[in-house]
Amino acid sequence: MSTIPNPFESRRGISERRETNPDLQQERDGASFDSMQLTHFLDGGSDGTYRRRHIENLALSDPEYDFDRESSQLSLDEAFKTALKHHVQLVRKTKEFGFKDKDYDIYNYFAHYLNPSSQVKKRLWRSGGPMFELHANQFQQEKWLKDIKDHRIIGCYAQTELGHGSFLRGLETTAEYDKERGEFVLNSPTLTSTKWWAGTMGWCANHALVMAQLMTEGKNRGPHPFLVQIRDMDTHNPLPGIAVGNIGPKYGLDAIDNGFLRLENIRIPRMNMLMKHFEVHPDGSYTPAKNAKVINGGMLRIRCQIPSQSASILAKAVTIAIRYSCVRRQSEMQPGAPEPQVLDFQTQQEKLFPILAQAYAFTFTGKALTKLFEEGIQEGLNGDPSKLLELHAQSSVLKAYMTSRGVTGIETCRMACGGHGYSRFSGFPTLLTGASASVTVEGDVTVLLLQNARYLIKCFEGKVKDAQCAYLLKEGYSRPKLGGKLKIDTILDCMAFRAKLHVNQAFTQMSQLKLKGVKSSAAWNTSSVAWTEAAIAHAEYISMKAFADTLPEIPNGPVRVALHNLCLLFGLHVLVRSSSRVLIQADYLSADDLSQLELSMLELYEAIRPDAVALVDAFDFTNRHLMDSVLGRYDGKVYEHINKRAEEYNHGRPEVHPMYEKYLEGLIKSRM
Amino acid sequence: MSTIPNPFESRRGISERRETNPDLQQERDGASFDSMQLTHFLDGGSDGTYRRRHIENLALSDPEYDFDRESSQLSLDEAFKTALKHHVQLVRKTKEFGFKDKDYDIYNYFAHYLNPSSQVKKRLWRSGGPMFELHANQFQQEKWLKDIKDHRIIGCYAQTELGHGSFLRGLETTAEYDKERGEFVLNSPTLTSTKWWAGTMGWCANHALVMAQLMTEGKNRGPHPFLVQIRDMDTHNPLPGIAVGNIGPKYGLDAIDNGFLRLENIRIPRMNMLMKHFEVHPDGSYTPAKNAKVINGGMLRIRCQIPSQSASILAKAVTIAIRYSCVRRQSEMQPGAPEPQVLDFQTQQEKLFPILAQAYAFTFTGKALTKLFEEGIQEGLNGDPSKLLELHAQSSVLKAYMTSRGVTGIETCRMACGGHGYSRFSGFPTLLTGASASVTVEGDVTVLLLQNARYLIKCFEGKVKDAQCAYLLKEGYSRPKLGGKLKIDTILDCMAFRAKLHVNQAFTQMSQLKLKGVKSSAAWNTSSVAWTEAAIAHAEYISMKAFADTLPEIPNGPVRVALHNLCLLFGLHVLVRSSSRVLIQADYLSADDLSQLELSMLELYEAIRPDAVALVDAFDFTNRHLMDSVLGRYDGKVYEHINKRAEEYNHGRPEVHPMYEKYLEGLIKSRM
Ligand SMILES: Cc1cc2nc3c(=O)[nH]c(=O)nc-3n(C[C@H](O)[C@H](O)[C@H](O)COP(=O)(O)OP(=O)(O)OC[C@H]3O[C@@H](n4cnc5c(N)ncnc54)[C@H](O)[C@@H]3O)c2cc1C
Ligand SMILES: Cc1cc2nc3c(=O)[nH]c(=O)nc-3n(C[C@H](O)[C@H](O)[C@H](O)COP(=O)(O)OP(=O)(O)OC[C@H]3O[C@@H](n4cnc5c(N)ncnc54)[C@H](O)[C@@H]3O)c2cc1C
Repeated sequence: MSTIPNPFESRRGISERRETNPDLQQERDGASFDSMQLTHFLDGGSDGTYRRRHIENLALSDPEYDFDRESSQLSLDEAFKTALKHHVQLVRKTKEFGFKDKDYDIYNYFAHYLNPSSQVKKRLWRSGGPMFELHANQFQQEKWLKDIKDHRIIGCYAQTELGHGSFLRGLETTAEYDKERGEFVLNSPTLTSTKWWAGTMGWCANHALVMAQLMTEGKNRGPHPFLVQIRDMDTHNPLPGIAVGNIGPKYGLDAIDNGFLRLENIRIPRMNMLMKHFEVHPDGSYTPAKNAKVINGGMLRIRCQIPSQSASILAKAVTIAIRYSCVRRQSEMQPGAPEPQVLDFQTQQEKLFPILAQAYAFTFTGKALTKLFEEGIQEGLNGDPSKLLELHAQSSVLKAYMTSRGVTGIETCRMACGGHGYSRFSGFPTLLTGASASVTVEGDVTVLLLQNARYLIKCFEGKVKDAQCAYLLKEGYSRPKLGGKLKIDTILDCMAFRAKLHVNQAFTQMSQLKLKGVKSSAAWNTSSVAWTEAAIAHAEYISMKAFADTLPEIPNGPVRVALHNLCLLFGLHVLVRSSSRVLIQADYLSADDLSQLELSMLELYEAIRPDAVALVDAFDFTNRHLMDSVLGRYDGKVYEHINKRAEEYNHGRPEVHPMYEKYLEGLIKSRM
Repeated sequence: MSTIPNPFESRRGISERRETNPDLQQERDGASFDSMQLTHFLDGGSDGTYRRRHIENLALSDPEYDFDRESSQLSLDEAFKTALKHHVQLVRKTKEFGFKDKDYDIYNYFAHYLNPSSQVKKRLWRSGGPMFELHANQFQQEKWLKDIKDHRIIGCYAQTELGHGSFLRGLETTAEYDKERGEFVLNSPTLTSTKWWAGTMGWCANHALVMAQLMTEGKNRGPHPFLVQIRDMDTHNPLPGIAVGNIGPKYGLDAIDNGFLRLENIRIPRMNMLMKHFEVHPDGSYTPAKNAKVINGGMLRIRCQIPSQSASILAKAVTIAIRYSCVRRQSEMQPGAPEPQVLDFQTQQEKLFPILAQAYAFTFTGKALTKLFEEGIQEGLNGDPSKLLELHAQSSVLKAYMTSRGVTGIETCRMACGGHGYSRFSGFPTLLTGASASVTVEGDVTVLLLQNARYLIKCFEGKVKDAQCAYLLKEGYSRPKLGGKLKIDTILDCMAFRAKLHVNQAFTQMSQLKLKGVKSSAAWNTSSVAWTEAAIAHAEYISMKAFADTLPEIPNGPVRVALHNLCLLFGLHVLVRSSSRVLIQADYLSADDLSQLELSMLELYEAIRPDAVALVDAFDFTNRHLMDSVLGRYDGKVYEHINKRAEEYNHGRPEVHPMYEKYLEGLIKSRM
């Protein structure tokens, strides 16, 4: 291993200024603040930055994490191989360094991102882990947890089947209790009951946490988690009665071996059903969980993490696009004038600045959610189920909202980089395909929005108390004062009232249908589009609130001003660009007011412009974080590196492609 | 070659009914019309359908067009190989069958789509072709056209450079005339002048149509097209002074070898500058073109084709998503009730039906554009330059609008299919990555929208006459009557007035700035977001108009009713879901009116629902058109085929992945 750089030193090389593209250097010199100040704030202080950088540097300087950059397009098998190599190194190093908790997370997170094709890949016992920890009783933890943590048990979480994902109760896999032998017998009775999609199941896993319909005493008790060994610990061969394999190529996430699994009369001991919260006794009798919601608890942790990941992916995309937009000069503003940096075009700002604002809003929202999770989960499991409910509602809607905005945002960034954004060397393809998965995994957008809507109804009716939803019960929103300098509170109030109006509208629509005698299920369905809009409006409000709540923590000064502007922009963009008709209908804002807000928004673009590069620099991504994007490089040497990568790609190839002779030569030389 | 099926026979197999998923069969049985009637209409009559199917069948039954389905993820080299194989067969068969014109297009189009990874790939002399035909004088046509058509000259169109794409005048490649030797000397004087991105340049092309700054008599005459041989006709080696290669992996379009090219003192005869419209005489004197716009003429043809391609790609995506949504059953509407087809969820309809409407609107808009092209191009080149201007404006805005809606639409379809939409076997990844390129190639969205906006200004000021823009000069739009059954004309009028308001708003914004003394370039930039909105609103109106103009051609009956509904939906969706604040501001519609329109739109979903499958069936795609998507199959045997493809993928692989031993075994067996 080469020497580990000092975290205090710039990680961008020593003669950084001289070697930077002058346009980018000028942006940095001209910003209203030093980006490092903001970095420290994001890291919770300079110590945090120091520690994070130190840990990242351990991975950065480790040659085992190298990968073959020119072949950004690896075959599935190659991508898988690289991911495994990194995984083994990760396990080894984590042990060696003795990382715990947050340090572990930083190292783990960063090391995985060092290989683009395993972007979202986490430890091999992936989503199974939290589920196990949540559901295993003490005996079970003692029996298996060490092997899991030491990576001898490589697991996967097998909930989804060919025929069912969203609808848990529809699962067809069965686990029937045989009280004679004190065992469960697991079966995949139909084609559609084949387990499908589980990450690491295809090639890696030797165990699966299988969700199956528990049958005991002749009754179906619904889906429960069972720990099933699927491969031999010695040979890694599938065990008898098990059919398992890779489900084949995907849009992205090439390094992850999503798999399928069929079970035929697989017998497991009674103690392999995870029974902390519910239990099947030796005689087959069943004790249900005190809190039925607990079955979803494992998903909760992951759903609480995804929003922060979305924020980070979006921050990467916008870092690439904004840096490139300062290096790229194109067109003429005036005939004969020098070509402007494309970030000077208002249209380019309209593409990128709202995304920059989102990246910050989502970062702070993600942090708030993590905090809520840490506070809420134990409370919820141990006593106060409303905490679980709240967490469930909050994480569902934020996961749905932030991942879907993430995909649109990345695609916008990609297109904002013109042709070069289409190259794999830009980093966008990897970001896009990864983000596109996050929209679907751990819960479909619409399904999650509608789950949240049901919770909003309860809050709206006053049946559930939730501080985040207090705005739904607040009365007397008064018309905002839009003259003079816009205040964040004013806009936040508009956002709250707008969300309330959406909830109210959906609620009224649904109630009227019911009054007309429409069945409540049909009334729900017929107002469900309105409900998804309400949930989104809620998420938008929550996100702006998390942003606004963070501002006072920043010391007075240019950093605070810059973030203040972004926070305002976040809200204005929502009000102006999404249909905010409800506000006009409620006579809260006029159409002219909205036009006025639009002008304020365009003026904000001009205020943000000089700080754009500093604002993305503050995320403190190294080039490796940015998947070695040629467009997003810290030094802005874009063209040199596009060219270098193409040269590397061609290096060692024959000047004439082998297929020339086979196919083209005949055509070219023919006189047919 | 196996026997060619009779075009009159269903291409879906003989015992079609029995073998179809019952849910899908029921949709077909329950539709208000026979999809074949609509297919005939789309083909311009049953003869058209017969002919098209006949030609498609020739390709479908040709085993040379097979490709390796399980490895949907080929390496670049493999994808390239398959594309070449198909290309050679295409050339051979086109000759053998003696296809001309439309027949040629059908065969060519279809045969290329048989290989997903070359989806957008056309004949090898790709965008160079039209440019050549446009700019070569008679002598040049006689000299080269036969070799081009016979595929001995394999060309590429090399306009874009590393540093310049959108801004043609910024190109740095030079072509200096040496009058002593009657030759041009071409050079790439800087790194950024390296030609980049040209399709087929990387490995295939032996010639390039190079856009370079023409220097003669000591003056720069701007970019002109030069035919440059880049590889030896015998060995295919790059010629001396030429550096050429593949630019490396991309987001998609793997089979296309986009390339780079550097020229060092490359000498070509004077006659290699294409000189139909301008000329450099032997003594170096220069005659410019009568119409300066002619330089863009070659791009015009391609820009006029792209909208139809976007329509077709969108139609494919929505075919896949709608069929799957009828097969997929998930969740409960009511506790204990059977799981509904997911297309019954209002939210699913909100995702897919507007896209279905777009697919039809774009199909008809594409046809109208093709017609305009056929009428306009010759007129324009030969005399009436306003025709060229009109065509240029129309194709720019439609290309920008339809390709960007295309990408969003496909991504929506992908997400509407949940987890299975993320598999490559769904077909979506190929559709998405291809469509994502179309947004950028042949002109960036924003740049094109702004070009169109400049044209709209001329029309708005009455300086240019264009029938399609007459609505901009029309006065006295009166408040629409929304009571009773909604009329298409009413909505079309709203769309026209809305577009006019947007133009007016941008115009006013810009003029006011100028009045305040802002430079006109800055005033333009500061109102450019408003201008892009105006251009989009214009495109939306044009698209609905093309749809509405088509309706009377359909015989009265259920087909017309179904399309009538879709046409209404197209307009309503724009009005309701995009910010139509301008209409409220102009006191043309109230916010309540818009809510009323929203309810009408949701009711339309219910009217469209029973015909959804028939409406996508009518596009008459075979499974191969749909890239063998497992989700979009005509027979609806979704689960069987997901499973089959996964099995094929695993077939012949060892049960234990070779990397197990190398990486995992150590971990699993360790007691570290
Ligand atoms: C990359 C990847 C990794 C994955 N990893 C795992 C894993 O490790 N383990 C695992 O168990 N699973 C995994 N999955 C599966 C994933 O969790 C599911 O695909 C996801 O939850 C969506 O469910 P679905 O596929 O059933 O979608 P569906 O529910 O079939 O969605 C199809 C459409 O129906 C709509 N719909 C469904 N129900 C409703 C409703 N009630 N109301 C309105 N609309 C509705 C949806 O909005 C969507 O538009 C993975 C999937 C992917 C893509
Ligand atoms: C798959 C693929 C195939 C291609 N094939 C070919 C080929 O065969 N031959 C060939 O010559 N080229 C080809 N190209 C290049 C392609 O034509 C250009 O990439 C495209 O025209 C966009 O130009 P650009 O890359 O310069 O974008 P840029 O102009 O650099 O765009 C970057 C950003 O700047 C903005 N911008 C630029 N100018 C303005 C302005 N005046 N006002 C407001 N905003 C502005 C854009 O909106 C965009 O957001 C190909 C590209 C791709 C991706």
